[in-house]
Amino acid sequence: MRCFFLIVSCLIFFEGCALSEAQTADQPNIVIVFADDLGYGDLGTYGHPTIMTPHLDRMAAEGMKFSQFYSAASVCTPSRAALLTGRLPVRSGMASDARRVLFPDSKYGLPAEEITIAEALKEVGYATAAIGKWHLGHHDQYLPTNHGFDSYYGIPYSNDMNRVVGGQWKEIFWEPKVEFWNVPLMRDLEIIERPADQTTITKRYTEETVEFIRENKDGPFFAYLAHSLPHVPLFTAEEFNGVSRRGLYGDVIEEIDWSVGQIMQALEEEGIADNTLLFFTSDNGPWLTFDTQGGSAGLLRGGKGMTWDGGMREPGLAWWPGTIPAGVVQPIVASTMDLFTTALAMGGADVPDDRIIDGKNLLPALTGESAEEVRDSYIYYRGATIYAARKGPWKAHFITQWAYESDNQYMEHDPPLLYNLDLDPSEQYDIAADHPEIIQEIRDVVKMHQDNMVARDDQLAARDSTHF
Amino acid sequence: MRCFFLIVSCLIFFEGCALSEAQTADQPNIVIVFADDLGYGDLGTYGHPTIMTPHLDRMAAEGMKFSQFYSAASVCTPSRAALLTGRLPVRSGMASDARRVLFPDSKYGLPAEEITIAEALKEVGYATAAIGKWHLGHHDQYLPTNHGFDSYYGIPYSNDMNRVVGGQWKEIFWEPKVEFWNVPLMRDLEIIERPADQTTITKRYTEETVEFIRENKDGPFFAYLAHSLPHVPLFTAEEFNGVSRRGLYGDVIEEIDWSVGQIMQALEEEGIADNTLLFFTSDNGPWLTFDTQGGSAGLLRGGKGMTWDGGMREPGLAWWPGTIPAGVVQPIVASTMDLFTTALAMGGADVPDDRIIDGKNLLPALTGESAEEVRDSYIYYRGATIYAARKGPWKAHFITQWAYESDNQYMEHDPPLLYNLDLDPSEQYDIAADHPEIIQEIRDVVKMHQDNMVARDDQLAARDSTHF
Repeated sequence: MRCFFLIVSCLIFFEGCALSEAQTADQPNIVIVFADDLGYGDLGTYGHPTIMTPHLDRMAAEGMKFSQFYSAASVCTPSRAALLTGRLPVRSGMASDARRVLFPDSKYGLPAEEITIAEALKEVGYATAAIGKWHLGHHDQYLPTNHGFDSYYGIPYSNDMNRVVGGQWKEIFWEPKVEFWNVPLMRDLEIIERPADQTTITKRYTEETVEFIRENKDGPFFAYLAHSLPHVPLFTAEEFNGVSRRGLYGDVIEEIDWSVGQIMQALEEEGIADNTLLFFTSDNGPWLTFDTQGGSAGLLRGGKGMTWDGGMREPGLAWWPGTIPAGVVQPIVASTMDLFTTALAMGGADVPDDRIIDGKNLLPALTGESAEEVRDSYIYYRGATIYAARKGPWKAHFITQWAYESDNQYMEHDPPLLYNLDLDPSEQYDIAADHPEIIQEIRDVVKMHQDNMVARDDQLAARDSTHF
Repeated sequence: MRCFFLIVSCLIFFEGCALSEAQTADQPNIVIVFADDLGYGDLGTYGHPTIMTPHLDRMAAEGMKFSQFYSAASVCTPSRAALLTGRLPVRSGMASDARRVLFPDSKYGLPAEEITIAEALKEVGYATAAIGKWHLGHHDQYLPTNHGFDSYYGIPYSNDMNRVVGGQWKEIFWEPKVEFWNVPLMRDLEIIERPADQTTITKRYTEETVEFIRENKDGPFFAYLAHSLPHVPLFTAEEFNGVSRRGLYGDVIEEIDWSVGQIMQALEEEGIADNTLLFFTSDNGPWLTFDTQGGSAGLLRGGKGMTWDGGMREPGLAWWPGTIPAGVVQPIVASTMDLFTTALAMGGADVPDDRIIDGKNLLPALTGESAEEVRDSYIYYRGATIYAARKGPWKAHFITQWAYESDNQYMEHDPPLLYNLDLDPSEQYDIAADHPEIIQEIRDVVKMHQDNMVARDDQLAARDSTHF
C-alpha cells in the first residue's frame, strides 16, 4: 500500500507539471508522420500479430487511437492533397477519372491557389519542413518549397515510378534492387541523388526530421514526414533486414516504427513532447494484389484503390503527453483533412473563408473536452466520382469496384448497398431492403454535396511530352 | 526537463518496490477470465473500432498481449477441458466426432481421473473458485466442486441450451427473453434459480469473483471466471443496455470489460495486484452465422467451429504489474493449455508425470526472461480428428470445413493447403506447391503425435434418457 500511494503521488505530480507547461505554450508544435499504403490492421495496437510496433503502440497507450479515421482518397496523390489542404481532392483538381495519381510525365500539380497547412502556419510564424514523398507535382512551382515549406528533402512521386527494367509486374518487386527504379531524391528544388538509395531512405528521412526538430526546438514548428514506404518496392536499412516475423513487409513497418520512436525520443530529450502534437496515419489502405508484400486492412473489407472501408480507413494515432488523455480509443468519424483545420487552430491561423474547407477541428476530441462527432457525413470518392457516402453509422455504396485486378468488377447499385459500420465494420450485411428511409437521407446528403460542389479542373490528366 | 527527471525517478522507484514485493511472494494468486465465443478482433487493443474495452486495453498497455494464443478446440466443451487439464481434449475423452459438445441430455462429463488446475493448486494450499459457465458435465460427479473447486456459482452448460420456445433458429436470438431458455443457475451442486436471469448474470458472476478475491486476499487463491457471454443469446444488465456503438453484442463485451475492471480494482484495492496473474482469453472464435450478434476474428480467417485460425486463435492478455513488463506484444505460439502448466509452476505444484501434458510453462515468456517459442508444433483438432497442424510459422490444412451452415463445405486436401502464418496470418496464400519439404515435416509431426496418442474413450456421445 505504501508503494501504491507513492505511485499515485508521482502520477498526480506528473500530470500537474505536464499540464502547466502545455498551458503556457500558445503555438504547439506539430509533427505529422504519413505512411504510404499502410493498412488499418498493420500495427500491433490495431491487432497485427507479427508486426512489432512498440513505439506506435506506445503512442496509443499514452495517447489517442482513432478507430474511424479516414483518408480522403484511396490512392496517393488525392489523399496527400486533401491532408495538406483540408479539402476533398476534387475541390483542388487533384482527383481525376482519367488518371488516378500523378506520374513522371504529368504536367501539373497542386495549384498555387490552394493553401497548405505549411502555408497557413508559416504565416503565423511556424518553421516548416516537408520530408519524404511529395506526389503533388514535380515541376518547380508545385514542389513543397513553393507550397509553404521552408525546406524539402524527399522523392517527388511514388517509389515504384520510373521503372527501368522489364519483367513480370509483380516479380520485379519480390527481390527489388534500387537501380530498377530511376527515382530522384531532391533537396528543395534540386535532384541530389538518382536513383534514390531506397535502402537508407527511411533512416535518412528520420535523421532529417530529428535534425529539424532539434534545430527548431524553441518552436513553433511543423514537420510533415511522409515516408515513401511501405509502398512497393519494399526496402529497409541493413539493420532492419530480416528482423520481422512478417518478412520484408514487416521489416519495413518496424523501421517506420523505429522512425517514430526516434521522433518521440527527440521531442522528449528536447523537453518539448508536452508541447507537440505527434500524429501518425497513412494515405490509403493496403495494396492487396501484392500478396504478402502488401499489408492488411484488419477486419475491414477491401484495400487500396477502393471505396470499401479497407481502402480509406487508416490507423490514426495522436500523442501529446499531458494534453491528450492516455489510452483512449476514439471512435468518431475523423479524417486526414481534419489535420489541416486542427493544425491551423493550434497555430492560431485563420481558416480560409473564401473556399469550402472539409476538415474539422479535432482539438476538443483530442483533449477529451468533447466526445461528439465532428461531422454528420463523409463522402467516398473514387477519382472525381462519388462511389459511396456515409451518414452517421450508415454507409451506402452506389458503385463498388475492385482495384488493380484484371477484372475490377465495376458494379452500380440501385438501390445502393447499405451497411451500418458501427455494427458491421466489415461491411458484410447489406440492410438496404430494411432501410429505404436511410438510403433517402444519404441520397439527400449526396445531392446537397453535389449542389454545393465547386470543383477545380482536373489537374491530373494532362501529360508532358517528357518524363521528369 | 525538471519534470522529466522527476517522472523517471518515480518510475524507477515504482519498479523497485513492485518487484521486491513480488519476489517475496512464493505462491502468487491466479485469476483466469474466460469469455465465450469472443473473437480475436473484438477488443479495442486487437483493433475493434466500435467496441470500447478500456480495462482490457489497460491490461495490454500495462501487461502482455499475446498475438498467437490458441484455444485447443473451436467449440466450448473440449476447449474448457483443455484449459483446465492442460491436455488436448482428445486425451480426456472430451473431443468427439459424434457430438461436439455436451448437451442437457449428455450422460458423462470430465472424467474424475483428469486433474484440473484447481485440483493441483488445492493440493498446495490454494483457495479455488469456479464462477460462470462450466460445460464439462452437469451431473454431480462432474461439477466443479468435484473437480478441485471449493465452490461453484454458475450455469452448467451453454446459455442457449434447453430452449423452450419454438420459432426460427436465428430470430429467437434477435430479441431474446430470459424465459426462452430453461437454463439452471447453480451454487455448488444445487440449482438455485431456473431459468437463470441472464440479464444480471455477468454482474453477479463479477460480484461473486470480487467477493472471493477479497475474502482470500491473504492468498493464495485461484479464481476461474468463465463468463457465459458473448455466446448467443445476448443479455446485458440494464445499465449496459444500449451503451455500445456496436449494438447488443458490443454492450455485452463492454459489460465483460467492466467486469475485468472490477477485478483489477479489487486486486489493487486489496494491494495484491503485484502478486496476482490476471489472464483474459476466450474459449473459441466468433460465431459468424449470427450476423451482427456474432463477433469478429479481425484479420483472421474463419470462426467458431472451424480449424481456420479465426476459430481457435483468441485474445490473450496477461496483467501482473511489476512482474510482466508493460506494453509488450507477445507473438510466440501459446495456448490455453499453457495456463495449466503455468499455474502449477506458480503455485509450486508438481506437473503430473503419469500422463501427457500439452501445456507449457509460460512464466519465462511472461516475465520477459525468454523470447523463445515454448513449442515447435500445434495440432488443430475438430472433434477427435486432426484437421490441421502447425510447425513453426507453417500451417498445413489436411481437411477444411465451414461450420454451422447448411453447406459446410467439407474438403480433404492432398497435398494439404499450406500457409505461413507469420507472413500471412489471414491464410490467403497457399504455398503448398513451393514447399513439399515443409509439408513432409508437418506430416512427420502429425504421425509422431498420432503414434504417441493415448486417447480416452469418447465421453461426449453418450446420452441420458432424460434432460437435466
